[in-house]
Amino acid sequence: MTHPTSPFRALFTGLSAFPLTPIRDEEVDEAAYAGLIERLVAAGVDSITALGSTGSYVYLSTGERARVAQLTVDHAAGTPVFVGVGALRTREVLANVRAAEAAGAQGLLLAPVSYHPLTEDDVFELFRTVTSATDLPIVVYDNPGTTHFTFTTDLYARLAELDGVASIKIPGLPLSPREFAAHVEAIRAATGNQVSIGISGDALGAAGLNAGCDAWYTAVGGTLPAPMLAITRAAVNGEAERASELSADLQPLWDLFAEFGGSLRVTAAIAEHLELVAAPSLPLPILGLTDSQKRRVAEVVETLNLH
Amino acid sequence: MTHPTSPFRALFTGLSAFPLTPIRDEEVDEAAYAGLIERLVAAGVDSITALGSTGSYVYLSTGERARVAQLTVDHAAGTPVFVGVGALRTREVLANVRAAEAAGAQGLLLAPVSYHPLTEDDVFELFRTVTSATDLPIVVYDNPGTTHFTFTTDLYARLAELDGVASIKIPGLPLSPREFAAHVEAIRAATGNQVSIGISGDALGAAGLNAGCDAWYTAVGGTLPAPMLAITRAAVNGEAERASELSADLQPLWDLFAEFGGSLRVTAAIAEHLELVAAPSLPLPILGLTDSQKRRVAEVVETLNLH
Repeated sequence: MTHPTSPFRALFTGLSAFPLTPIRDEEVDEAAYAGLIERLVAAGVDSITALGSTGSYVYLSTGERARVAQLTVDHAAGTPVFVGVGALRTREVLANVRAAEAAGAQGLLLAPVSYHPLTEDDVFELFRTVTSATDLPIVVYDNPGTTHFTFTTDLYARLAELDGVASIKIPGLPLSPREFAAHVEAIRAATGNQVSIGISGDALGAAGLNAGCDAWYTAVGGTLPAPMLAITRAAVNGEAERASELSADLQPLWDLFAEFGGSLRVTAAIAEHLELVAAPSLPLPILGLTDSQKRRVAEVVETLNLH
Repeated sequence: MTHPTSPFRALFTGLSAFPLTPIRDEEVDEAAYAGLIERLVAAGVDSITALGSTGSYVYLSTGERARVAQLTVDHAAGTPVFVGVGALRTREVLANVRAAEAAGAQGLLLAPVSYHPLTEDDVFELFRTVTSATDLPIVVYDNPGTTHFTFTTDLYARLAELDGVASIKIPGLPLSPREFAAHVEAIRAATGNQVSIGISGDALGAAGLNAGCDAWYTAVGGTLPAPMLAITRAAVNGEAERASELSADLQPLWDLFAEFGGSLRVTAAIAEHLELVAAPSLPLPILGLTDSQKRRVAEVVETLNLH
């Protein structure tokens, strides 16, 4: 069985790095952002996903998002660029799609951002509308911690039938290796093996790749590409144990994510500590970590020799 | 003990009606909106809160929100108007504050809208920033079902100390009358009795007023003011049993809210059935109720003789 989305699937494999969008004095710090992109290119990431959750996409205006999409492509030196287009309103999503197309993006990331809880039909129709409006392949962004929408495997299957849906970004789950592999296999079966499956949740990247995911959509890999690429290469080459060991070496980092409420504030603190971005770098009302928390992040960065 | 916010507290009592912002062909239907406001004035509501959750505030652009704020004041005929200014980013909140001031609003409603989960310090600093930027009194909008931020009574107390915080809109809770009264009393004690306390959650409006709340911030009352005013007047006049009976008479309506995932879609369907707004009236991706669900809403409207 052939499927129109199949040609795109290979694009959504390996490590896709999600850079921060640094904010300085309430504006996007374009010079710092360009530096982050060039750093990812130099590290050799497989793709760059601009304006993911780590890229603060929902906090930016349509104009800022268009500009960030363009900056990404301009500095990506041919590395494939995917652009997050999610927004609370379908009208805004479509404006973001047009901007990503104009910038030269090779793919789109779409999350069902919600305020009033969305129904499964609302979400299906959103994806149907967007896939009808563009020829770019789309990554379904399943991130219930931020969107507060929970996908079912049945909805994955409905979405995979839409021309243009090329990948599903699944949340990390605290499963045993065997359970994780069965979970990925169940999604693969339900979606007719037509879409790539990517893991998010940085602490579970190695586990997800070892469980058979095609891609790692990594937030921290947008700021620390080298150690995350080492994990990815090991897993993709079949060295599952090596991938797990490399990830276990980073346990102090994963512990900070768990303690400080996710990867965003910690990743921003890392980028600030490495002087890749100026502090503070997150959009208000997000204050970022406190000074004492930032000192603990700096200690872990130094101890693990992250750079 | 005196407090600068005390003079404002009386403003935030009785029934505050939250109108829909009808959307037609992806634009605000200004004529229909003006009609909704005039209907609330004719019914004699105590205040009108434009751009609440029911008013789809987060789905509208800054320009649309400024226009809706102005339309509300222009058609309110002197009824006090409060305007929802919440947004994901503090920068946008402040722009909405300026627009509400320019429109002639008498108060602001501010919810800690989130994508990345907010900390208590993030939220406190947001309210501190906004109260510093305006002389208008502010209603703290606690709506964890949409903002995904949970207030503590301790945070209520910190916020009540800010000059300008005049009221707290608390979510409805499934408590016994005695527990509900104790809950309201605990908030009153923690906030030094300096702010008004308003109940939201339409099915629990009577229970909240009977438990000692000063105000009912009512979504469905923005479309059906008369029956909600009858409940409010009974409760405010000390006729607790009468208020409970009037609310119990509307149980088929509350049941629809519970079954169809909240008040928004049902309230929009009521407004469409009563031809106050054209269908569909909600912003995409929210599709609204299905045709069969809308027929059930229409049956309840007719059976209860709601108008």
